[in-house]
Amino acid sequence: MTIDAIAFAGSKLDRADHIRTSPDALRDLMDWRARVLELDGLEPVVTPEGTLSWRTIGSVPEGSELIFLGLDGTRGCFAAVPSENPAGAMVPTPHARELMDLLHSDELATWGVARAMVSWHARHRFCARCGHTTVLAKGGWQRNCTFETCGGEHFPRVDPVAIMLVEHEGAMLLGRQPRFPAGRYSALAGFVEPGETIEEAVAREVFEEAGVRVRDVNYVMSQPWPFPSSLMIGCHAHADDPAIVVDRTELDDARWFTRAEVAEAMDAVGRDEPVGAFHAPPPTAVAHHLLKWWLAKG
Amino acid sequence: MTIDAIAFAGSKLDRADHIRTSPDALRDLMDWRARVLELDGLEPVVTPEGTLSWRTIGSVPEGSELIFLGLDGTRGCFAAVPSENPAGAMVPTPHARELMDLLHSDELATWGVARAMVSWHARHRFCARCGHTTVLAKGGWQRNCTFETCGGEHFPRVDPVAIMLVEHEGAMLLGRQPRFPAGRYSALAGFVEPGETIEEAVAREVFEEAGVRVRDVNYVMSQPWPFPSSLMIGCHAHADDPAIVVDRTELDDARWFTRAEVAEAMDAVGRDEPVGAFHAPPPTAVAHHLLKWWLAKG
Repeated sequence: MTIDAIAFAGSKLDRADHIRTSPDALRDLMDWRARVLELDGLEPVVTPEGTLSWRTIGSVPEGSELIFLGLDGTRGCFAAVPSENPAGAMVPTPHARELMDLLHSDELATWGVARAMVSWHARHRFCARCGHTTVLAKGGWQRNCTFETCGGEHFPRVDPVAIMLVEHEGAMLLGRQPRFPAGRYSALAGFVEPGETIEEAVAREVFEEAGVRVRDVNYVMSQPWPFPSSLMIGCHAHADDPAIVVDRTELDDARWFTRAEVAEAMDAVGRDEPVGAFHAPPPTAVAHHLLKWWLAKG
Repeated sequence: MTIDAIAFAGSKLDRADHIRTSPDALRDLMDWRARVLELDGLEPVVTPEGTLSWRTIGSVPEGSELIFLGLDGTRGCFAAVPSENPAGAMVPTPHARELMDLLHSDELATWGVARAMVSWHARHRFCARCGHTTVLAKGGWQRNCTFETCGGEHFPRVDPVAIMLVEHEGAMLLGRQPRFPAGRYSALAGFVEPGETIEEAVAREVFEEAGVRVRDVNYVMSQPWPFPSSLMIGCHAHADDPAIVVDRTELDDARWFTRAEVAEAMDAVGRDEPVGAFHAPPPTAVAHHLLKWWLAKG
């Protein structure tokens, strides 16, 4: 991936949403020029040149449900829903982490939307309203219940997640989730819940996880994150009282790091040398870009 | 509602998420002091004093699924999932619109989270993975599949929606959805899709609906919107080329309005007098606050 890019953003495919609602246009695109993303479960097959691998539509098992990812020029790009549920890790596998470093930004974005969509379809073969089977509709941007008196329509999920840098007198609050690699600290984060603003979600999560009250929450940047389908909403906030009470059911630890410690850790990302106070998150994580933004704004 | 408040935000209930995961703590809260929000379908029953009406937990039919909304002091507040699916309008009914004007901001927020949650539970009684029945878990913040070999876990949805003011040389792009009342124009909006940032969603939606390319997208404010459970993400962007191509499948119209026209329309909100170029959105809509923000920033 291009190191300055936000991972999983910047797809070059044109989503061409008017095609989704036109069965004729969709059928016309499913010709010999169409491309189907080659997936092994939820992970892409990569060519020796380090690019995504695509197949023709004829190579897909007959009757496969096809998701219209978008147009590459005038050519339709699709992903097939596998007949078996793919083993769907909610966090990137080590292999996925390698692919995230390897693939070009826009190809990573194409894989990201395919992963989120294929995973959603595989987990929504039944109607949550009535339990009957569902079928793919509108080029994969909808599933419909097959039970006529139900008529349930279901749409792909995007789960908004607030992820936040909290600052107190020039120091930065970072936490360690149990699943993190050794030494890693990153921004606190949590799902935005029904009935709250982004700013309220930031304040609630920081208080829940670290016992710290925040003010002056500001949005900084966002990132799509296909594990399984989140929208990471990166924010910055201030704390007046630095006293921390760690919620040990969520975090191993939460600490304040000085600007110098953060700068040193960010400087060491991608190097083999030992780092200082902690290991910073990699460039594929929005937390990395938030920390870079924070250091740059001074 | 307090006219300056963001509707459906600012609930005074403490979500107390540690209680959700403790069956003992939940059971202890379900005592004679507990309150259950009185709902008629998805709409609240309002007292003669114009406040939300609450019942005791003993008045709820035995076996009802109860959602833990949060703590009011040390008292648990709940909502019951009805045994029948409530008629769940995806846009506010005229009665809901009246309630939105009537209720105090923090009570509106309490209704909002209850509406989003009750509606989600009522539409997710079956497992989307396997079709078996699901049961409420973790105080209503999860549903679990009852089929042991599936073990599906399902979480309440929050659907992020980008809603945006687009500016060109001091004029503002607003559109008319077919369902709007006569004369109403408001900010363009659309769901953020898997695989895009907020900024990419803004650019895609504006181009899809109005054929206008935007740059310099900035986040302004957010609002929870429980019809059925959106997170409205309010943004501002610039356009260089004002040429509009309206997508008539989405919009009746899209037009540029001068700052004076927007100011006049906003000034007329809530008055009975005839308005100028268009009817501005009401204070319960985030679009209203976006326009107010835009006029104030000058």
